[in-house]
Amino acid sequence: MKIAVDAMGGDHAPEALIEGALLAGPQCSADILVIGNEARLSSLLAHSGDSTSLKVVHAPQVIGMGEAGPMALRRKREASLTIAMRLLAENEVDAVVSAGNSSAVVSAARHLVGLIPGLRRPAMAVPLPTPSGKLLLLDAGAHAEATAIHLAQSAVLAHCYLKIEEGLNRPRIGLLNIGHEPAKGNRAVQRAFALLRRCSLEFTGNVEPNDLFAGKVDAVICDGFVGNVLLKMYEGFSETVCRFLESLANHDGRDFSGGAGRILERFRRDYHYEFVGGAPLLGIRKTVVAAHGRSRATAIANAIRLACRLQEARVFERLAGIVEEDGALTELRHQNTLLMIDQLKDKWGFAHR
Amino acid sequence: MKIAVDAMGGDHAPEALIEGALLAGPQCSADILVIGNEARLSSLLAHSGDSTSLKVVHAPQVIGMGEAGPMALRRKREASLTIAMRLLAENEVDAVVSAGNSSAVVSAARHLVGLIPGLRRPAMAVPLPTPSGKLLLLDAGAHAEATAIHLAQSAVLAHCYLKIEEGLNRPRIGLLNIGHEPAKGNRAVQRAFALLRRCSLEFTGNVEPNDLFAGKVDAVICDGFVGNVLLKMYEGFSETVCRFLESLANHDGRDFSGGAGRILERFRRDYHYEFVGGAPLLGIRKTVVAAHGRSRATAIANAIRLACRLQEARVFERLAGIVEEDGALTELRHQNTLLMIDQLKDKWGFAHR
Repeated sequence: MKIAVDAMGGDHAPEALIEGALLAGPQCSADILVIGNEARLSSLLAHSGDSTSLKVVHAPQVIGMGEAGPMALRRKREASLTIAMRLLAENEVDAVVSAGNSSAVVSAARHLVGLIPGLRRPAMAVPLPTPSGKLLLLDAGAHAEATAIHLAQSAVLAHCYLKIEEGLNRPRIGLLNIGHEPAKGNRAVQRAFALLRRCSLEFTGNVEPNDLFAGKVDAVICDGFVGNVLLKMYEGFSETVCRFLESLANHDGRDFSGGAGRILERFRRDYHYEFVGGAPLLGIRKTVVAAHGRSRATAIANAIRLACRLQEARVFERLAGIVEEDGALTELRHQNTLLMIDQLKDKWGFAHR
Repeated sequence: MKIAVDAMGGDHAPEALIEGALLAGPQCSADILVIGNEARLSSLLAHSGDSTSLKVVHAPQVIGMGEAGPMALRRKREASLTIAMRLLAENEVDAVVSAGNSSAVVSAARHLVGLIPGLRRPAMAVPLPTPSGKLLLLDAGAHAEATAIHLAQSAVLAHCYLKIEEGLNRPRIGLLNIGHEPAKGNRAVQRAFALLRRCSLEFTGNVEPNDLFAGKVDAVICDGFVGNVLLKMYEGFSETVCRFLESLANHDGRDFSGGAGRILERFRRDYHYEFVGGAPLLGIRKTVVAAHGRSRATAIANAIRLACRLQEARVFERLAGIVEEDGALTELRHQNTLLMIDQLKDKWGFAHR
């Protein structure tokens, strides 16, 4: 198995990427290709004292964190990310890991590698730690805007992914909203609610953000703007709690009888959000894992290990298979049409079918 | 001073409302009117053993939590909320507190009491506890959708409110977004960024949710959907941390040397989000405070005390004065037109002015 790592993407590129790849190397059964400026990467590898375990592929261009994805993709055909995705499309590698500009990662994966047929766009899936286990959040930031059908398609992806990954027969899917009632939220969410209620997924209705920790759903669906806000809020709050506990631990002995340090350790283990696994880009036909732009070496190594595991279990391939077999996307399209007809009937005062 | 409490709104109405009003009564210098079903309220008051300190005003109807605000307002002219707002509009009372259906509270305040001239809609402002003090979040849920001009007007409200309430000369206003770059986020947010950058407010640019705790801004602007998600996520996470500490405190002595209990106490004091004050509905011409639907008696009492304090300091009245005096809304309108012209010029390829 071969995994391509976009070594030039991310806030700490290329150092963190190379270090992460070197960390992950011995623990996963894949050959790792690092893609980027050859001179720079080779010198980093030479410095690390391990210049043989990674293969360097030269890429003359870099897509910056501030560029618009689709535009960058068209203009920079020789960027590290573009080359990595092209290698994946041509079966030269089996998986791609990138911590770069997420809009560019999404565009490149979608246009160079391709989507599951019938799907309109991929969704980034992130498992949030909660007291009752992991909760899958998607879309966690692939697209800043979403219509009802995009949201409903994400629900289908979540359903099929959890079936494969967690072995759940009927994963419970919730729609993120600011109230339980069907009329709550913005228009896209209201319509997604109506649509999902008609489908055969295990749709549990609207979920408020404070209920995410209650273990009532296995996955929660929202647009990428809200999902990214939620994720970063989680990150910020968990860091704040860690710093709060740290400050107590520092003048501990006296006030907290040495407990704060141990509590901090426990909290970090259970809740500290270090993007341990990276986020699979669900809906792409081959294995693509996006890592947080801020990732340091450990997080990168974890993302590479995740890509390795997902590819070993052929999760992306099986996902495409299940989505097609299930017929859920077709059902969704059908229900969307029926919903439109019913809404027109309501509007023009015809009797309901 | 007289404060009207909508005794029928909220998940725990009317019991929590009556109990809260009785709690708040002795600590604030206002007469409290509780509005709702007279028979029910009087019997609750008789049971409480204090049937004289609150004045009951009869309202035969109730607006439910699931109803659409504007519709409920038109249909239920004799609902507790509608009557409370009418009393405020007619100067029979000086402030209204409601924990009811927030969409109905917003509609009623807007249409019966009125907005500051030039403003398109009110915004709910909630102070979030952070390590570096309170951070004003708005809109925290008054409207589920927002255009760029709505977002920019919220920034003006935040600016003027913080000037009055916190005595800040140039409060730092951030725009909630999923990245720092101007091109990040959905269209409304991108356009709001361009608009705010042209205004004379102290606009610090995009703020990511994980940076909210870093004390870089005094207020953060977002639409009501995102704001409400953020708020409820805060609530859920802080409750989760409390439960985490509680569970450690329970088998404490052995493992955490008695520290967990004291840490829990400290965390609760600093971060537990109990909606301590309710949220002022900024932009309304008179004092309106919305409380969380889940509020229990203590939270209701706090909301009533907040209304009392805001009315004593004439905050809503001064806010209307400052907004008009400042000319910020006029400037915004002007800049919005210029932005539109510039964008058209870009689109059609004319040279820039």
